Formats: sequence, structure tokens, C-alpha cells
Amino acid sequence: MNYCSQCGAKVALKVPAGDNLPRFVCDTCLVIHYQNPRIVAGCIPEWEDRILLCRRAIEPQYGLWTLPAGFMENGETIEQAALRETREEAEADVELTSLYTVFSIPHISQVYLIFRGSLRSADFKAGHESLEVQLFRPDEIPWETLAFRVISATLQHYVEDRQNDGFRLHTGLILPTPC
Amino acid sequence: MNYCSQCGAKVALKVPAGDNLPRFVCDTCLVIHYQNPRIVAGCIPEWEDRILLCRRAIEPQYGLWTLPAGFMENGETIEQAALRETREEAEADVELTSLYTVFSIPHISQVYLIFRGSLRSADFKAGHESLEVQLFRPDEIPWETLAFRVISATLQHYVEDRQNDGFRLHTGLILPTPC
Repeated sequence: MNYCSQCGAKVALKVPAGDNLPRFVCDTCLVIHYQNPRIVAGCIPEWEDRILLCRRAIEPQYGLWTLPAGFMENGETIEQAALRETREEAEADVELTSLYTVFSIPHISQVYLIFRGSLRSADFKAGHESLEVQLFRPDEIPWETLAFRVISATLQHYVEDRQNDGFRLHTGLILPTPC
Repeated sequence: MNYCSQCGAKVALKVPAGDNLPRFVCDTCLVIHYQNPRIVAGCIPEWEDRILLCRRAIEPQYGLWTLPAGFMENGETIEQAALRETREEAEADVELTSLYTVFSIPHISQVYLIFRGSLRSADFKAGHESLEVQLFRPDEIPWETLAFRVISATLQHYVEDRQNDGFRLHTGLILPTPC
């Protein structure tokens, strides 16, 4: 951030009075520009004994498999965001059943909120951000070509919970990849 | 938003190519400025049969009671944010036990993530954003002077679950107050 989005003056990085973290501050119009983590909302769409994954048609991780998920928009609930992303990426209609995983990814300031959801029909197809969408049994999940570690971690919990016949909420943390 | 925070040029509100929502776009440096919901993280600090509330020393809702909670910062996990807010507002040290409520407040683009937490000691006092902090039994909760409806909704679940001796995750929605 270089300029104040309110008045166009140059901003400075400084700790405002009463605060303890540096913020971008405008000395002209006095606005403090806070920057906060973003929420990624999505779901695990279930159909009988299989789940739906999408192969990404966009960067990053073009060509790799993921769950339908994306940035929550202003004015939405987390459930609306998860349903919208599932429609956009897989043209699929699900009924959300429960919040399933909450992962913090502090090094990129993101929080993933992933629901379980029941597909209302097997009528789905690749949306414009997907190359293809496909149902996988747990033993068919393409672990080597998943797009993101948060997706692998979510699916690992899912496979284990399904084996144990006991789904529960999981919270967790994704750390940076070692260099 | 009036000016591009990257280059200082005027921004325009328009739907970018491949998108379906209006965004603030800079036609000079081509940056798209996305705006997304913010996370408020906090906890219900428990001590024996009581919970800790804070009376706000800041606006909005100066003088009213709330749970320790505040905006999650970049670079944090949700757990770190909840612990930090509890330290800042109540100078209290808790051990988080489980994520308890997840409330969307779409009209102000916020998502509240509130944990249950066990106070490690009864050594707490008002932080600089609190007028006072106090332990309340469920039947002492000051319902009429709570600061926010999301806090009332969270505490209603808490009181009910404790009566039923069965705590579970709750997800919910706070709508605008009728005019």
C-alpha cells in the first residue's frame, strides 16, 4: 500500500496512537488502513460413497485437484459463500450438513471454512474455473495431484472420520512449506 | 474507495472481465481491489461455574458488556487472535477448549468465531479497552446491557447447552435490526 484509498495522499507505515502494530496511516485525512485475513469458504460435496473434486482451470495450481472453495464476498454468510463457490466451480447444488474444518494459514493470512454437503443430484459439470469435475471414492482421491495442503489435510480428516464412522469438527493450522 | 492504494490514480467501480461483481478497479496500474469480510475472534473464558465478561471502554457500545473478542490480524491463527484479544481486554490467560460459535453478520461483512476457554487462574483485570471485567454465573448474565446481538446469541446457546450438559458447535446468522 502506497496511497490512501480515501484521499489519494501518500500513506506511511506507523503504529497509531493506542495501537501496538504498524498500520498504513494517512496523515492527510487521518484514515487508518487496517488489513485483515481473508476467509475461503467451500464444501466437500458428497454423493453416495463418493465426493466431488474439481480440477483447476486457473492459477495458482492450474491442472491440480481441489474442493470447490473460494474467497467469501462482502454481504454473504459463510454458508452462502460455500454454496456459491460450489455452483460456480462445479455447477453443483448441495445441501450443507455441517461445518467440518476450520484451518488457519497465517503465513498467507487466510482462514479456510469447509462444510460437508450432500449433492442434491448427480447433475454437475465443470464451471468456468474448472477443467473437469469428478466423483472419487476415498481410495481414489488423487493425493499426489491435490492443489493445496489445506485441501489434503481436510480430505485426510474426512477419510479417517469416514473409516471411524464419526465425523466431527476439526480445527488446524497450515505452516509454510520448509525451504 | 476513491484512489488506487498501489499507484494513487482514481479508481472506478466496475465488473472486471471474468468476474460477476463490481470491484474497485484501477485503469492505470490494472490492480483490482477486492474487499472481503473480516473475522472477529474471541472466547468465553470459564472459571468454575462462571464466565468472564468485559464492560467496554470504547465505542461502539461504550459501557456495555461483551465477551473478549476483536478483529483477527494478518499473520495470526484464529486461536492466537482469540487468546490475544482475551489478554488485551481482560488481561486473562485461558486455555482454549473448542470452537463454539460461528456467526455470519452479512450486513456488516463480519464473521464471529468464538471459542470456549478455561481461565488458567482468577488473576485478571480490565485491559485498556475495558472499564471492568467480572465473572458471572449464567443466571447473572446482564442480558439487558450486552453490547452486541451476536454476543447475546452466543451466550444464549451457552446457557442452554450448559443446562443440557451438552456443548456443541453452533453456526448462525445475525440479521440487521428492523427499523
